[in-house]
Amino acid sequence: MAQVAINNGVNVEALLAAREALRNAPEAAEFTWRASCKWLNGTHARSTVRGFRGLGQEQEHKTEFSFETDHPEVFASEDLGATPVELVLVGLASCLTAGVAAVAQNRGIQLRSVEAKLEGKMNLYGILGVDSDVRNGYDDIKVSFHIDADASQQEIEALVAQSQKRSAVYDIVTNPTKVTVEVV
Amino acid sequence: MAQVAINNGVNVEALLAAREALRNAPEAAEFTWRASCKWLNGTHARSTVRGFRGLGQEQEHKTEFSFETDHPEVFASEDLGATPVELVLVGLASCLTAGVAAVAQNRGIQLRSVEAKLEGKMNLYGILGVDSDVRNGYDDIKVSFHIDADASQQEIEALVAQSQKRSAVYDIVTNPTKVTVEVV
Repeated sequence: MAQVAINNGVNVEALLAAREALRNAPEAAEFTWRASCKWLNGTHARSTVRGFRGLGQEQEHKTEFSFETDHPEVFASEDLGATPVELVLVGLASCLTAGVAAVAQNRGIQLRSVEAKLEGKMNLYGILGVDSDVRNGYDDIKVSFHIDADASQQEIEALVAQSQKRSAVYDIVTNPTKVTVEVV
Repeated sequence: MAQVAINNGVNVEALLAAREALRNAPEAAEFTWRASCKWLNGTHARSTVRGFRGLGQEQEHKTEFSFETDHPEVFASEDLGATPVELVLVGLASCLTAGVAAVAQNRGIQLRSVEAKLEGKMNLYGILGVDSDVRNGYDDIKVSFHIDADASQQEIEALVAQSQKRSAVYDIVTNPTKVTVEVV
């Protein structure tokens, strides 16, 4: 019986080769990601992403990516973009989803569909300064994956677990990350 | 001399009124933000944001917001969107920037321009699994604000400090946030 090639669109061979190459070139593994944000009016801002540093030199995305953010009308704003806290959910969702595809490719599991639904709970008493015991950010975030793949439920759960284990954004959100803010 | 009205486009009166109203309606202050993410191919995914819950009922943004994410070509991907870790920088940048505008309005400071530049450093040894002592996420994030406003350098620095103090995304990134992942 002919074996059907697994193809989730992830070039695992290139990633494994990169891992071996970077093992002997620690400086090349140091990446710097960047974003710029311009205030437009009220709580409305536009952020752009283009250049980054990695593999020992400056790099550029093929195109500039632009993101509009705002607060919704229930916060007396104009709702001209997603809220910044929703952007964090998008970052988490997309990081875990890309990871599922990469791990599935590495394990020879053909994916048919992957969908993630995220919910983050937040008590406004924090950001409004009503109660200093309430944090500004999410109390907790729930991620629900619906995955259709040529694999058992157990294998699918193992895919998601491995994606979590290697996810940059999952790490950033669940663990403390140092942020320094300066005014130039 | 006529006093010039300060206008940064933030309705501070409405926000202060909301704070007073929510003080007596704790359930209305419980918000749930959501995002959905669909895998497209490889590391490319599309996320959408539309509905959320707050003020005791379901709410909707005026329009659906959509975000493309991918990995860059140096990761053997197609670079069809920003990377998920860049989305986190966008969320942080836009949250702090909206906060600067709101605090400036509340303090009667007219802003002329606000720009934030963010850099996040990451050692790929983490996500590639080369060294288990290296974290997957950012080692540290630097935020640099350039602000032109009718205010002293000290007042501008105080604006930024207060924005940090009340920022949801700054809190999410700098402090641990619980994330639960399930496969449905």
